Amino acid sequence: MVIIMKTDIFSKCFDFYHQLEAVKKAEQYFYFRTISSIQGPEVNINGRRFIMLGSNNYLGLTEDQRVKEAAIKAIKKYGTGCAGSRLLNGTIDLHEDLEAQIAEFFKKEASIVFATGMQTNLGCIQALVTQDCVAILDKFDHASIIDGCRLASGCFKRYPHNDMQSLERLLQCEPEKPKLIIVDGVFSMEGDLTNLPGIVDLSKQYGVRIMLDDAHGIGVMGKNGRGTAEHFGLEEETDIIMGTFSKSLATIGGFIAAKREVIEYVKHVGRALLFSASLAPPLAAAASMAFKIIKTEPERRKKLWDNAHFWAEGLKTLGFDTGYSTTPIVPVIIGNTDKTFEMCRYLEENGVFVSPVVPPAVPPGRALLRTSVMATHTQKQLERALEAFAQAGRKAGII
Amino acid sequence: MVIIMKTDIFSKCFDFYHQLEAVKKAEQYFYFRTISSIQGPEVNINGRRFIMLGSNNYLGLTEDQRVKEAAIKAIKKYGTGCAGSRLLNGTIDLHEDLEAQIAEFFKKEASIVFATGMQTNLGCIQALVTQDCVAILDKFDHASIIDGCRLASGCFKRYPHNDMQSLERLLQCEPEKPKLIIVDGVFSMEGDLTNLPGIVDLSKQYGVRIMLDDAHGIGVMGKNGRGTAEHFGLEEETDIIMGTFSKSLATIGGFIAAKREVIEYVKHVGRALLFSASLAPPLAAAASMAFKIIKTEPERRKKLWDNAHFWAEGLKTLGFDTGYSTTPIVPVIIGNTDKTFEMCRYLEENGVFVSPVVPPAVPPGRALLRTSVMATHTQKQLERALEAFAQAGRKAGII
Repeated sequence: MVIIMKTDIFSKCFDFYHQLEAVKKAEQYFYFRTISSIQGPEVNINGRRFIMLGSNNYLGLTEDQRVKEAAIKAIKKYGTGCAGSRLLNGTIDLHEDLEAQIAEFFKKEASIVFATGMQTNLGCIQALVTQDCVAILDKFDHASIIDGCRLASGCFKRYPHNDMQSLERLLQCEPEKPKLIIVDGVFSMEGDLTNLPGIVDLSKQYGVRIMLDDAHGIGVMGKNGRGTAEHFGLEEETDIIMGTFSKSLATIGGFIAAKREVIEYVKHVGRALLFSASLAPPLAAAASMAFKIIKTEPERRKKLWDNAHFWAEGLKTLGFDTGYSTTPIVPVIIGNTDKTFEMCRYLEENGVFVSPVVPPAVPPGRALLRTSVMATHTQKQLERALEAFAQAGRKAGII
Repeated sequence: MVIIMKTDIFSKCFDFYHQLEAVKKAEQYFYFRTISSIQGPEVNINGRRFIMLGSNNYLGLTEDQRVKEAAIKAIKKYGTGCAGSRLLNGTIDLHEDLEAQIAEFFKKEASIVFATGMQTNLGCIQALVTQDCVAILDKFDHASIIDGCRLASGCFKRYPHNDMQSLERLLQCEPEKPKLIIVDGVFSMEGDLTNLPGIVDLSKQYGVRIMLDDAHGIGVMGKNGRGTAEHFGLEEETDIIMGTFSKSLATIGGFIAAKREVIEYVKHVGRALLFSASLAPPLAAAASMAFKIIKTEPERRKKLWDNAHFWAEGLKTLGFDTGYSTTPIVPVIIGNTDKTFEMCRYLEENGVFVSPVVPPAVPPGRALLRTSVMATHTQKQLERALEAFAQAGRKAGII
């Protein structure tokens, strides 16, 4: 095929490929690592065993036998897919059972599940933030919230991370326009919490609604694992609770829980629901079982928090900067990008899996290693990892 | 909470809810019907048995024992989810095996799989159609293509359905801008094919690339089930082949297959890949097994086409208008919206499941019943359905 190169839409791909090769050559590439085992506290990569400290499997439920069996049972009865959208031919009773369970758990009137967490945000935000509406976001909100706003016909504004004064200024603008504050409960990179009490106060004062993306909070935060809103005692004040199944809930998918009218509206208007196949039966069954376990086994959450404290304290004692984290997500802030990769390489050589997060994913000079613990890590595993961190940190001149 | 009603972002939800109640009361609501069985040629709804004529399970593989067993085996080894994105901790060898298999099947250099078909289009298009690039779409393209274009920083233009003269005019505009033609292979509502030969001719003449969304073509079209491009003998000329796992491939997920550089670029830039959890292990295993079956059992495709011909001929013989369909998707064009619902209601009463498609999903006056057959329908089932259609059509005064 004759392609005039300068107007080839693929030309950026060819350029990128060369850059990628260079990064790989410089041994600064720690992405798309191929795991050949279950996502547990340890994983297999290239025939070697790694302590997994880069997973969102907070409660360790991906390995739970009851979750697996629920999924297997669903495959036997319903097969591996529903071959259609929820709207037309893809709704099964498992979806509705899961939705009833979620609504009850979060004490909301109703719930709707989506095929992914990303599509949950896209579908819900695109449906709600219509023309003349304004979405107000924390600057550190997840990419799927931004993309939901980009798809929406309304506009969106962002305030500096957790800055309530800036949020208030945004709420004061255009008082005639309906507004929705959309925030992460637990911020996924640095493990700090949103200032939900401040947000709720302002939402009452200015008469706006709140949507909480609690992907990393559900199962983790709150006495009963109901997330960041429960942690702050502000469940009723949080109009929409959004969550995903790919963290504590052991599979993939997402949901919102809210008033009945909001759910019915999003069900019929949310393009990411209407124009996508429905959540596969085994995943609906797995999430359902994971919710049951979260409700009945608070000891898992206790174990998770014990591990989180042990891990964060250990890192701090070694002299690492763990930022503002107050959750099982603990960033190790390195600052310099090259040193971050150097640390990552040393940790990899010593059997510890962490994820490097470098600019533009974080601000310049704030390169970090994202770590997170699971309820199923043993203290011995965490001690071994701390030892590797100590050596890596000293080698790189960080501590 | 004090909410000033006129500026409540939920007010549209309350309005919608009242409208929805009215539609349900008028018995014009045939959506979100709850199936309590596997998606086969017959399904259970509310304790009754229905002949399923509204499914995308073209080859009947959702019921295949080998597909189920592959998924179950994957759950036992890898669990129900990967608890992270492909980029960081969510890549398993099953993903890479599936990608290698897809690349080989479609005779492309490489492939990447996404968690859903929708996210495949969002991620790929957003990555490729950057500023100063132009996406050119058929007006009947799937919603996920439109949303991919909305997320992209480049612009997009649409030509009337299958109108090659209009397409050429769009290609003549702004010749300095890189362009990508993005089209459905099989149009999902009316079952007609894209004019791929015409598109390929124009793409060569104007030096632009082609992306083919063959969600409904893969497994169905072409001697070997490789889809619409194979059907037309234009696989090499089709730069990107996109497909989903939620139709012939028995589960949910999506992929693109293309040149290595394009795949690597999309893998590292596509937000719908980077910021979403990875395809769950059982789904990757199910899709992989479904591809194997498609490759080795052409008799399924033959059975599908025998059923498609029998069904379409039967409808035509009864006097129904089946539009331009040349695939197992056969629309029954009713025109009038109320009559479409009347037909749907009669069919439902008589145990036949079809999906009503009314404006704005189709142009005004082109309301239709979307029907589609599977390889696993028996002739007896189709005969029973034809009988129900005949009665419904006569009752509604359509035939």
